[in-house]
Order: sequence, then C-alpha cells, then structure tokens
Amino acid sequence: MNSVKFGAGLGLAAAFSISAAPALADEGMWTYDNFPLAKVNQDYGLKLDQRWLDRMQGASVRLTTGCSASLVSGTGLVFTNHHCVVECVQDLSSGDKDFVKDGFLTATRDEEKKCPGMQAEILASITDVTKDIQAAGAGKTGQDFVRARETAMAAAEKAGCGDDANVRCQVVSLYRGGQFKLYKYRKYADVRLVFAPEFATAFFGGDPDNFNFPRFNLDVGFVRLYENGKPAVTPTHLSWVSRAPQEGEATFVSGNPGSTNRLMTVSQLETLRDLTIPVGQLQRSEIRGRLAQFGQESAEHKRIATDPLFGIENSFKVFYGQQSALNDKAFMDAKRAQEAELKAKVAADPKLTAEIGDPWGDIAKAQDAYANNYLRYRQIEGGATYSNLYYYAQTLVRAAEERAKPNAERLAEYADTRLPLVEKKVLDAKPVDAELEEVYLAFWLSKTREYLTTDDAAVKTLLGKESPEGLAKRAVAGSKLGDPAARKALWDGGLEAIKASDDPMIQLVLRNEPAARAVRKVWETEVQAPTDSAAGRVARAKFAAYGDAVYPDATFSLRLSYGKVAGWSYRGVTVPATTNFAGLYDRATGAEPYRLAPRWVEAQAKVTPTTVYNFVTTNDIIGGNSGSPVVNAKGEVLGAAFDGNIHSLGGAFGYDGSINRTVVVATSAATEALSKVYGRTALVKELTGK
Amino acid sequence: MNSVKFGAGLGLAAAFSISAAPALADEGMWTYDNFPLAKVNQDYGLKLDQRWLDRMQGASVRLTTGCSASLVSGTGLVFTNHHCVVECVQDLSSGDKDFVKDGFLTATRDEEKKCPGMQAEILASITDVTKDIQAAGAGKTGQDFVRARETAMAAAEKAGCGDDANVRCQVVSLYRGGQFKLYKYRKYADVRLVFAPEFATAFFGGDPDNFNFPRFNLDVGFVRLYENGKPAVTPTHLSWVSRAPQEGEATFVSGNPGSTNRLMTVSQLETLRDLTIPVGQLQRSEIRGRLAQFGQESAEHKRIATDPLFGIENSFKVFYGQQSALNDKAFMDAKRAQEAELKAKVAADPKLTAEIGDPWGDIAKAQDAYANNYLRYRQIEGGATYSNLYYYAQTLVRAAEERAKPNAERLAEYADTRLPLVEKKVLDAKPVDAELEEVYLAFWLSKTREYLTTDDAAVKTLLGKESPEGLAKRAVAGSKLGDPAARKALWDGGLEAIKASDDPMIQLVLRNEPAARAVRKVWETEVQAPTDSAAGRVARAKFAAYGDAVYPDATFSLRLSYGKVAGWSYRGVTVPATTNFAGLYDRATGAEPYRLAPRWVEAQAKVTPTTVYNFVTTNDIIGGNSGSPVVNAKGEVLGAAFDGNIHSLGGAFGYDGSINRTVVVATSAATEALSKVYGRTALVKELTGK
Repeated sequence: MNSVKFGAGLGLAAAFSISAAPALADEGMWTYDNFPLAKVNQDYGLKLDQRWLDRMQGASVRLTTGCSASLVSGTGLVFTNHHCVVECVQDLSSGDKDFVKDGFLTATRDEEKKCPGMQAEILASITDVTKDIQAAGAGKTGQDFVRARETAMAAAEKAGCGDDANVRCQVVSLYRGGQFKLYKYRKYADVRLVFAPEFATAFFGGDPDNFNFPRFNLDVGFVRLYENGKPAVTPTHLSWVSRAPQEGEATFVSGNPGSTNRLMTVSQLETLRDLTIPVGQLQRSEIRGRLAQFGQESAEHKRIATDPLFGIENSFKVFYGQQSALNDKAFMDAKRAQEAELKAKVAADPKLTAEIGDPWGDIAKAQDAYANNYLRYRQIEGGATYSNLYYYAQTLVRAAEERAKPNAERLAEYADTRLPLVEKKVLDAKPVDAELEEVYLAFWLSKTREYLTTDDAAVKTLLGKESPEGLAKRAVAGSKLGDPAARKALWDGGLEAIKASDDPMIQLVLRNEPAARAVRKVWETEVQAPTDSAAGRVARAKFAAYGDAVYPDATFSLRLSYGKVAGWSYRGVTVPATTNFAGLYDRATGAEPYRLAPRWVEAQAKVTPTTVYNFVTTNDIIGGNSGSPVVNAKGEVLGAAFDGNIHSLGGAFGYDGSINRTVVVATSAATEALSKVYGRTALVKELTGK
Repeated sequence: MNSVKFGAGLGLAAAFSISAAPALADEGMWTYDNFPLAKVNQDYGLKLDQRWLDRMQGASVRLTTGCSASLVSGTGLVFTNHHCVVECVQDLSSGDKDFVKDGFLTATRDEEKKCPGMQAEILASITDVTKDIQAAGAGKTGQDFVRARETAMAAAEKAGCGDDANVRCQVVSLYRGGQFKLYKYRKYADVRLVFAPEFATAFFGGDPDNFNFPRFNLDVGFVRLYENGKPAVTPTHLSWVSRAPQEGEATFVSGNPGSTNRLMTVSQLETLRDLTIPVGQLQRSEIRGRLAQFGQESAEHKRIATDPLFGIENSFKVFYGQQSALNDKAFMDAKRAQEAELKAKVAADPKLTAEIGDPWGDIAKAQDAYANNYLRYRQIEGGATYSNLYYYAQTLVRAAEERAKPNAERLAEYADTRLPLVEKKVLDAKPVDAELEEVYLAFWLSKTREYLTTDDAAVKTLLGKESPEGLAKRAVAGSKLGDPAARKALWDGGLEAIKASDDPMIQLVLRNEPAARAVRKVWETEVQAPTDSAAGRVARAKFAAYGDAVYPDATFSLRLSYGKVAGWSYRGVTVPATTNFAGLYDRATGAEPYRLAPRWVEAQAKVTPTTVYNFVTTNDIIGGNSGSPVVNAKGEVLGAAFDGNIHSLGGAFGYDGSINRTVVVATSAATEALSKVYGRTALVKELTGK
C-alpha cells in the first residue's frame, strides 16, 4: 500500500498555502544530491555534513510494497509501520491462525517468515543521465517519443547494473521530466517478518480516527533482511533510542514519498479535479461498500476483508483530501497566479520562449485526449484492480508477449532490468481468497460495462453472453493461478504455454488484450507523449526562473525532509505535539474500533502511563513515506512516520508548515510495548543492547 | 422514487445548450395557467383550446410516491410506470410470493390490493397567493422569515381546503419564490395495484441500459383509485390507443417534474458541483456496494434488495449526469454569461436596482454558511436515509412534539394541512426488512461519525460507547415500529407516549433531536432565509427583463410540455425514434439483466415482432415525470414516459431540443403484451373496449 494515512473529519476544511519557489521553511522532499544542507544547518543551528547524509542514506530502506523503512541493527533488522507489513501478516495467516487479529510475534530468528512479493532496497548511488534520455526523445512525437525514451532508460539501467542479481538500477524522472537520474540500489529479495502487533493495536481508532490527531497507534512492524538464507550484515544503521522526543527537536524524515503533483500545470489539476479523482472515488466507495458488507457475512469473511478494506478506506481519505484541495477556489487561484508568474518570466526571455514554446498550451490540449480516453484506458488497460488472479494472468500474458521481443521494443515495465521484480511478484507464494477475487472481478466487469456501455465492442468481447457475476464466478473457480507452480509453468512456458492454456483467467486476459493494447497506444500517443514532452519544457522554464533551489515532485524515490517536533494551532484550537499511553486507555470504549487487544488490557498496570506514544513534526511527507525513520541530528531514530494530520490532506499539491504535520509512532512507545506488553526480550536487546 | 431514469454509458459526454429566456422550441415544463397555447398551435399547426387543456389536467394524476400517471378509464384505472409501483409490488410480496420477480397479475377487481402509503391526487384549481406569502416575509430575516412564510402558506392551504378530507391544498413556490400558487387537488387515499409485469420485463437491460436508447422495457404499471371501498367514477380520462406512435406526431407530456435548477445562480450551481452532489454520490456509491453485496448473499436477500438497489443506481446515474454538466466548462461559462446579462439589465434600471439590491451577492454569501453547515445538516437533521424504522421513529417523535404546538408555530411539514398524508405514510401497513434496516442504520451512523468525527458532541450522543454496527443491531432488533399497531399507539398517544416509550429507535431519535433541531435552526437562519429572500428578487429581475414567457423550475407540481416523436443524431450517429419487439428478442442473452421472463420466452411466436415497444420524443421532462401520459393532440395516450436519453442527463440545468429526448413505453406494446403475453382479457377490454 503506497500511502501515508491522513486524518480528521471529512467535514473540516483543509487549509493551503502554496509556496512559490524557492521552498518555504521546512518545505520540500529533497533528493539526497540536492539537499539544502547549509540552509538547514543555519536554520536549526546544526553542523550536519556529508557523512551524516551518507549514513542516513545507507540506513534508509525502500520496500517494494510501497513503503519506507530503516535499518536499526547490524543484523538486518528493519523498522517500519504495521500497515506496511500487514499484507504480509495477512498472507501468513489462515482461517486457523489469524496473525492480523492476534499479532505476529517471534521469540527466535527461525520463527521469522518470508513476506511474499516483498523486496527491500537501499540506495547506493545517484548518476545524472538527463542528457541521454532527453536526446533519445528529441525530434520524436507520439508513441515513438515514449518508446525511444523508455528504451534509453532501460539501456541506462542495464549499463548501470549489468547482470548483477544483488543490485537494481532504476531511472527516475525528476521535475516531471526536467531531470533523469539513475538510482542504483543494493537489493534484498528475501525479507522476513519479525514482529507485528494486533491490528486493533496498530490501527486503534480505525478509519474514524485515520484523519485525527491526537492518535494512539502502535503502527509498528519489524522485518529482517536475509542474504543466502542468513540475516544480512548491515553495519550502517540508525541508533535506536527509547527516550521520548523533545518539543522543538530537529527531525529528519528519510523515505520514499510516493507521488505529489505540486509541479502540475493548472489544466492537469483541473483534469484530476473533474475526472480522475471523482471517478476513482466513486468506484472506491462502491467497492468499499461491497467489502464492508462482505466482512459482515462471517468471521472468515471479516478476516480476509479487513486488510483490503483498510487499504481502500485509507485511499478514499487521501483522495477526499486531494479533491477538497482542488475544489478550494483560493487554492486554485493561487496555482493560476503562480503559473501566470512563470509564464510572464518566460515571455520576458525571447530565447527561452523560442526554445520551449508553449508547454502549458500543449498540456492543456492533451487534456482533451485525456478526457476522451481516460475511462477506457482505466477500465480496459487498467484491468481488475485488487484482483490477484487477474494481476497474475495479465502479467503472465504480457510478460510472455514482451519477452518474445528484443529488449528495446518491449513495453517499459518488461525491460530486462525490470523483469526480476516482476518475476518475483508473480511467482512468490501467496494465498488467494477465491471469494474476494470473485467480488473484485465481478465489480470490475460490471463497472467496465457501466462506464463503457453494453454495446461497446471491448465490453462485448469481455463478457460475451455472460453476466459480470457469472463470468467472475466461472473464471475464479476454474483458474489454477492461485497455485505458484501453475504460475511458474506458464512463466517458464512462455507465449506457447500461454496460448495453449485453458485457464479461464488467462483466456479472459487474452480476450481483452487487443483492446487493452489499442487504448494504451492511443494513450501514449495522444496523452503521455505530448504531456511528458511539455512537462520537461515547463521544468526548464522553472530552472531558468528559480535555479535549483526547488525540489522535484515525489516519485517513490529516496528523499530527505527536515523539520521539528511541534504541535499546531488552528482556528483557536491548539493541538499538543505528543500523546501518551494514558490517553489510549482513556479513549478505549470497548467497541470496535476503540477496543483494546487483550494483551493491552492485561498490561495496563505494567506500562508507564506517561510514555510518549505518538507525536507530530513539521516534516513535509506524503503517502509512500509510511514507515520512514524520523531521525534527530545525532542519527537517533525517534520513531516511524505513519500518517499526516488533516491539514496535510492536500499535500499532494502544496505544503503549509504552520499546520501541516507528520504523525509518528515513537520508539519510546515501541520499546515499552515490546518489553512490557509483548515480552519480546530478544528483539528489545537487539534494538537497545539491553 | 422521484425520478425519471436517464440513459447511456457514463463515459459519453453530455452536451448542453442553455436557453436564454424566452424558451427555445419544445423547451419548458409549463404550468397549466401559463401554457404557450398560441405558440404551440402555430408551431405544430394545431387548434388546441382551453377545453383540451382542462381535459388533460383532469386526467393527469400525481402519485405521492414521487411519480406521475393518467386516468385511462371511467372506473378509476390509472396508467403509470412499473418503476412507480414497484415499491408497492415489493410491499405486497413476501419470501413465498415474489411479485417483483413474477409480476402482479389480477383477473378480477377483488384481486386488486392496496398500495401502502400511496395517495393519488388530481389537480382541480390554481389560485395566485403570491402577495400574501411575500407580504408575510416582508421586513423579516432569518428563522422569522422562514417561519412567517411557512405560517402564511399553511394558512392559505387551510383557507383553500378547510377540513374536507377529499381534497388537498398545497402552496407551490414557483420561479424560486417569484410566485406562490395554491394548488388544490382531489385526493384518493385508497390506491390499489392492478397490474405489474415481471421486474425482468419492466427493467430489461437493468442498470447498464438505464442510460441507453434503443430500449426494450415494459415499464408499465396499472393501479386503480378507490372511493368508499369501490372503484372511483372518473368520467374525465384519456383515450387509450393501441396503434403505434407516428414519427413527427405532436406529443404532450402532462406530469409532475420533480426538481430542476435552471434558475439557480452560478454560486448555487458551484455549491452543488463541489459539495452537495459529490458527497451524495460518494455515500450513494458506498451504500450501493453494500446492497449489491447484500443481494449476493441469498435468494431472499436478493429479493429484498432488488428494489432499493434499483432506486439507488437510478439516482446515481441522474446525479452522475448532473455532475458532468456542472463540470462542463462551456456550460458553466454560458450560465455565467446569462447571469451577467441579467445583472446588466438590472443595473441599467435604477428603480429595479433600488428595489431588489444585489440578490446574487446575497446568495453567494449564503454559500459559505451552506458549506460550513451542510454535512451536519445532512447527517444529523437528515437522519438515516433509506431506513423505514428511522423514518417512522423520526416522524412519530417530531409529529408528537409539533402537534403539541399551535398550528402557526409548527415546523412546516407538520402543519394541519400536511398532517393527513404524514399520518397515512406512518400508519399504512408495510413490511419492514430487519436485515436491510440494519444495513441502512449502521451505514448512516458510520458515515455520520466519519464526516463529523468521533469527537463531535452529536456523534458521541448518538453512539455512546457502541459501534455503529452494534447500535444498529440493537435498535433494529428491539424496535416494535415495524408493527402498524405500535405506530398507531404512539401516534395516538402523542408526546407523553413518546417520552415513555422504551423503543430503542424512538430513543435514538429522541437522543439526536436537540442536535438535529439546532442545526436545522442554523440552516434556516443562515442558508434558507437569505437564499429564499434573494431568489425571489432574482425572479423579479427575470420577470422585469423577460416578461412571463418563461417557465418556472420544476417543483413536483403539474406541468405540461410539448414536443414530437423524433429520433436524433449525435456525432454522426443517427438513433431512430422507435424500437420493436424483435429488438427485444435480439438483445436477450439469457444472462441477467438481459434474461427474458419465462412468459416472454413462451410468447415469442405469438407476439407481432414489428410492434412498437419504446419510442422517443422531444418533450422536456425530468425525474418525477415518470409515468406521465404522452398524449397526442386528440387526447389519445400513446405511452408513458419512463426515462430520458443520455443527453438529457444535465436536464436539471438546461435543455437542448436537438438531442434531449424523453423515452416512452408505447401503449401499442402494452396492449399487445397484456393481451398476448399476460392474457389480461378484462384489463384489455377496460382499456380498449374490446
């Protein structure tokens, strides 16, 4: 789940101020090669240096499941959020053993269990490849432009990493195509679960509190990196501290913010506002309702629906906040003014004007193509969101088709450098819940028919004479793709095996494939190519106008943000920076989601009520930063970021340091809980040395 | 259900042109006292006169369930849509007898069954009371303004109808408060179900086709008005014809369009666009998902969820279309231009300016109060949408509180003239499905907590220490309000009985009552009063600028629209005006919702394939018009309106005669089906004389 959770009542308005470049105090998700070290040292009276930065970078972990994390011991122990490992906890559970409900506790290392599909990556180096990528696209348009740049990126990745199975190279587009950097990672494909608390503890207050602060969540999870079947040796790691964070203490968040749209043009924001987000929210709301009801049907249904429902509700809130920001007139007016200012600077520079043309106009034009093709692209090429079986089938079919081509001619996501992770995700064993799969597939088919109509050729091809429910039932019941061996046979068998397969899910995907590829072609030609080309030119204008004291939009690549421990005031209400264990016990009503796990009821007399539980900082983060270490100037980890407050809801589009807050679960709470509630002696010793 | 169904894929853009006043050809939902008779006679080469209008008015029926209908025999037989009687069909069904699935067929009159809560009303006269109502509000503001006008309306209704139990008087606000008219109706409280086809026949193609034309729906229902236990004598009625409608034939739709917002100011439309509709759609999507999944759980769940799910999906599409219209830049620009033109005309007239001030500014200011209070007003005062038990409890509590006050001091909906229908709706026997009630109540409680937060005082009062699910279960299980006798005891017992009641649903409503009344007061003071006052002044500006060649927004009161039988062309595709039975059989796949009812499979050889089934006309209608007779110049009923095409989706805000279409089920199809598929000899004889 690629998301920080953001909180408070949907009724409260979010407030925004939009920074003009350069960034305001505490604003920015900075790349490690452009961190404003001097400014931060001056603002906070610190003496941070490159060594400090290097250590931070070396201890920062990216999880391919969409989260961030940090190394906290020399033997591969990784600290992250519960909600970053809950899918793994779910995968390791069954009807008999519900680790989501009861928590996953290990006493010794041989109890640690591999998380399906999870890979950990640590950034080793950054290299500028901007010229190569931009040169590849120069003079080209449409799909040629897209393919040429993708081919150049794949080549750069190959050149950077070769065939070394221990590293991963990835070209990252920064400033919406203004720069391209090659990020080289040390990778760990064997990641094992060490500790996860009960869902009721990690997500106390559930969806209703998911917008709020004060909060009381042990949103903590531990995994361990393994190499050759043994715990990895990781000399570079952060120091664990058990003391509470101090008000005003400088904090650094090192992690992988997933996606922001702060550099988008106004016409792009309008498309998000009027089309992309609303359609997503409507579909999300409906599947949310289906899962909520599904979970009411039996204890087993509740067990299997809890984790996906949590993910959907979390996304719903994130986008609800984004929509509110975009519906805010003052916000959009500020964006318009900002854009007008930049345009005016360009207009005053004839050479620059000649060089970049009118990228804003080009992007605005591409919005028509976007609007005309979005629903088809979303439904037909996007496929059955949430369904694992569909994902397996689609990936197996595409991978077989693409691997049969030369590397340079493939769809980007199947280039040689990308295949190892694709293969891992498809082949790792993972439970598949047939009943949920049916819900997901029927939902996708029914929405596709609803949005494209019964008479649409692609819909007719998908459904034939079946109903969405009937086809979903048949395809799920008949599919063998839940079995990793069946997937491996098809992966290894390639295109021939795929074509010969009578698996109904494979056949469904094959049937849909021509329409999916057709709309993808239109999308790349009419939307992606002109947008990417123009966005690069907007970035050029921005660099010309403001220099490099700007940070790029988030792209789920490593960033560092700075700030401090601080509460906030809004409309006369002052919110303190920390909560403690006493507050947890006060808030517990006994009814879900305010019901304590039994261990916590039993431990009430043992824990210290004043232990700091959750706290807030001014760091600028967003979804994907979940699990990021919150570190002080000494390199001590004070907690893991797990949420944002209500005012950061619109963080996708802007940041206001006076009220935007990162929500953190404190290491003080984790130490106390591991020791007194869960009795995890070995783990506490590994963390604290005691 | 107060809705015309509107059709075609959600992906297709609706097109709009907005008429400046006076209205374009075929545009308008005209009141019977301002119908442009001369213009229509000239445009269509007809000689319609007042007698013709009187007959149309006398044969037009309003159903209090939110639909329109027409008298088609001298013995009280009423023709309407299946979807206007399906709630009644559902109410008469049980686990053993599913009339929704199998159809409700009577052979003799003693098989006709009373529809709970349904009342039929025929407009007898219209009287202008504008001066009285406006005078009552003059010089007042806030809640005083609202109450004074409501009191004046109640007084006008009382004066018009006295204590005559056979009539109903209703003051209708026209032109958003520009006029007030007293509508006096002959009322029939005993309405019995005569005929309804199978759901699969009435709603063939289901939700996916609910936007489309060509269509193939026998969306037909018959009820009969009863007086003193006998069929009513109704000499004024329309002539039934079994011949097909002719291309170009002039058509008149006489019915009760529910609500349009064509005269709203731009700031009001923006609030709809950014707040009211989005929140409604998100909640609607989620409850839709819950019901869809609920219906998958068992055959009985499917049976009880089918009708409500249909209603929710229908509303979803209507508002999806409205949202698309409001997101359309060209559309909003046109609205802005229109408003600027009217403002300019006012500015050029100093006397008028002095008289009306700046109503647009006043309304814009009220939008802030709207935005600040809407969610609380919606959740706390609005209560548990869809739940019958909550509706009963809320109405019993409010009615008891209000009836204890003098008539002039009551909330408008409990004035003496309104009480008979309130009482009928509360006391009529009607099945209550406990499991569905639980879904509705838990949903409302959970959304209220989500939108207002756990820490909100009203939410705390509602939930106490319970979860939404726990409270819903307890309140539904413990409530006796499903029993009409229990409701009657509380209705008759008044405030004392209510206060003494230990019914958990009554207690829930009582607990919520202070917060509900508080937010209603804020709403009336800060939103309703300034808006109503200003809207009346906008109307005055409009009359001054354009005279009376304008029609008022729809208000679920009787209107007449004119047009003709005609297909349309759009983006190079020409859609013919009619469909026939052959098309139905072509479209049937055998899978829901394209599965024919068994009777239709059996009858295929008997029915004439060329029989016209559904057709389209240029009439300007909207939700609430469902069931309206579509009549030719001779007073022959050609069909019943049941839907709009895709382009009428934004009909709430504008009309474009070149592409907006009314969708009608033809009397030709009804006659053929009644005779050859259903064998309803007596009914056919009553309709056709043969």
